[in-house]
Amino acid sequence: MAYVPSLDLVPGVLRGEARAIARLLTRAENGTDEARPALDAIFAKAGRAHVVGITGVPGSGKSTLVAKLAAQLRTQERTVAIVAIDPSSPFSGGAILGDRIRMSDLGGDPGVFVRSMATRGALGGLARGTLEAVGILDAAGYDVVIIETVGVGQDEVDVARAAHTTVVVSAPGLGDDIQAIKAGILEIADVHVVSKCDRADANKTIAELKTMLTMGIKLGGGTEQWYPPVIATSALKAEGVAALIEAIDAHRAALNRTGEIATRQAQIAQRRLLRAGEDILRDRFERHRAGALAQLLDELVARRTSPHSAAVRLLDAIRIGGNA
Amino acid sequence: MAYVPSLDLVPGVLRGEARAIARLLTRAENGTDEARPALDAIFAKAGRAHVVGITGVPGSGKSTLVAKLAAQLRTQERTVAIVAIDPSSPFSGGAILGDRIRMSDLGGDPGVFVRSMATRGALGGLARGTLEAVGILDAAGYDVVIIETVGVGQDEVDVARAAHTTVVVSAPGLGDDIQAIKAGILEIADVHVVSKCDRADANKTIAELKTMLTMGIKLGGGTEQWYPPVIATSALKAEGVAALIEAIDAHRAALNRTGEIATRQAQIAQRRLLRAGEDILRDRFERHRAGALAQLLDELVARRTSPHSAAVRLLDAIRIGGNA
Repeated sequence: MAYVPSLDLVPGVLRGEARAIARLLTRAENGTDEARPALDAIFAKAGRAHVVGITGVPGSGKSTLVAKLAAQLRTQERTVAIVAIDPSSPFSGGAILGDRIRMSDLGGDPGVFVRSMATRGALGGLARGTLEAVGILDAAGYDVVIIETVGVGQDEVDVARAAHTTVVVSAPGLGDDIQAIKAGILEIADVHVVSKCDRADANKTIAELKTMLTMGIKLGGGTEQWYPPVIATSALKAEGVAALIEAIDAHRAALNRTGEIATRQAQIAQRRLLRAGEDILRDRFERHRAGALAQLLDELVARRTSPHSAAVRLLDAIRIGGNA
Repeated sequence: MAYVPSLDLVPGVLRGEARAIARLLTRAENGTDEARPALDAIFAKAGRAHVVGITGVPGSGKSTLVAKLAAQLRTQERTVAIVAIDPSSPFSGGAILGDRIRMSDLGGDPGVFVRSMATRGALGGLARGTLEAVGILDAAGYDVVIIETVGVGQDEVDVARAAHTTVVVSAPGLGDDIQAIKAGILEIADVHVVSKCDRADANKTIAELKTMLTMGIKLGGGTEQWYPPVIATSALKAEGVAALIEAIDAHRAALNRTGEIATRQAQIAQRRLLRAGEDILRDRFERHRAGALAQLLDELVARRTSPHSAAVRLLDAIRIGGNA
């Protein structure tokens, strides 16, 4: 298959062609310079989709919920794209949970696009590729773009916060370690889901959550508040998914009504800007590995300078903003 | 209590005084400019301790293992400091699991220092404060400094890799989601632990792990390889902890014998340099929020520029390396 320049893929992406989308997604994930103008062009065209972040601790049943949510959105004639962030296998290099599991529920429907992206170990490529992927699927015309992450690390939380509406999934009967991690992500929820509500101990989880959530979130410049609702779902009994969609839609309507959407978009833009700055920084460091960086590293290993002092000197030396 | 300038705390830290250590740790965690010269002075004095990273998925029993490990090291007359990264509570602002649980095992022994550090939501303060904390405890004279993290996010993995020896804890009987996450961190292990080996299904976990680990890690410039051992432990039966210490010590000896320690230290220095650069970047962005940043954000929200282009322009505009 001949190599198609990334810019030449853009028209196909904007027409919603699955093959062009898939190819540009791969290039966004690889983060090559060649794809940069194409991704910038895509960014300019995106902004129509409702971006929904779905996060939850391991074992909360979030992948199952995402599949049910997508199926339900399809019954409403809405198209759906899913970007799932999976832990990668150090042995195969690929995502473990993968498209295959999810596609078995949704396969063959052209109104659904599923993409698994593997975390990248220490390479730090997670957030960039993910946000570019959301832009591509948004520009391709999908009505709802779902970002699914395991909500347990900084990068994952940042990705979830890149959404207009963030859903945090809890489940009954998880261990103490898991419960503690969960507490750290509850604050980012616009909508709460308690999954596995066919279980006898689910009511306890719902009650605890409601007790913690006595405070509302102030919206826009006015006095209107949003109280994150708690939605009970059961994949086993196929319950709660329609209520979840209503809650997500109600949240979007509240954002638009109060003007809060502008605040959200400014926050998302700021986080993306910072991320892009970090990517450039990493890139520059990489390019100066043999030059300015090498000597500084020697000094640092010998503890003749500190990381902070060394970083200040290096940033000066390599003209970080330029093309040097 | 009168405010003591951070630099005045340094002599007390170097003499190993618990109160001076605790106060400087708090300032490292807060990341104030005032503490910078003190932390730089501490960095120059550190480098003697064996830094051991212990990470594992939620439910792997890693906190219990760390407490047992510390107690066993004390029977060998070695002093131990533990930096535990806990998910923070959005409600109390503090760490949830906390010092209290761990101290109940180790309380009152001046040869053990335990510090819990809370993750910081989206503030990105985790890694910086943690690595500074390790430096403080190292310079204070502790023989072994243990970094304990929940090994499920990018930052956590980075912190674990800041160690000379990284221990990854697995456990039998965890769910599929957890197992998948675990796979993502197996590759960073110098030593594997399978905890809860009093359970009947532990042998299966050990066998699976050994099957995956047929490859060794090449050490130094020579041909010597390190095969990450799999240590079975049981907190219930108080087994395996002595064997774990032997494995950790054997790994350190191999690093020194082969000269691999220099490679590790260079890698750690490079990661710390990059982190410091990112911190400076974030700080500069923060300071220009009302100026150069504000206009760019408006353009970005309107999608008249892309995050990458905006970041390049901003980095140029604010002379990132300077004191502007």
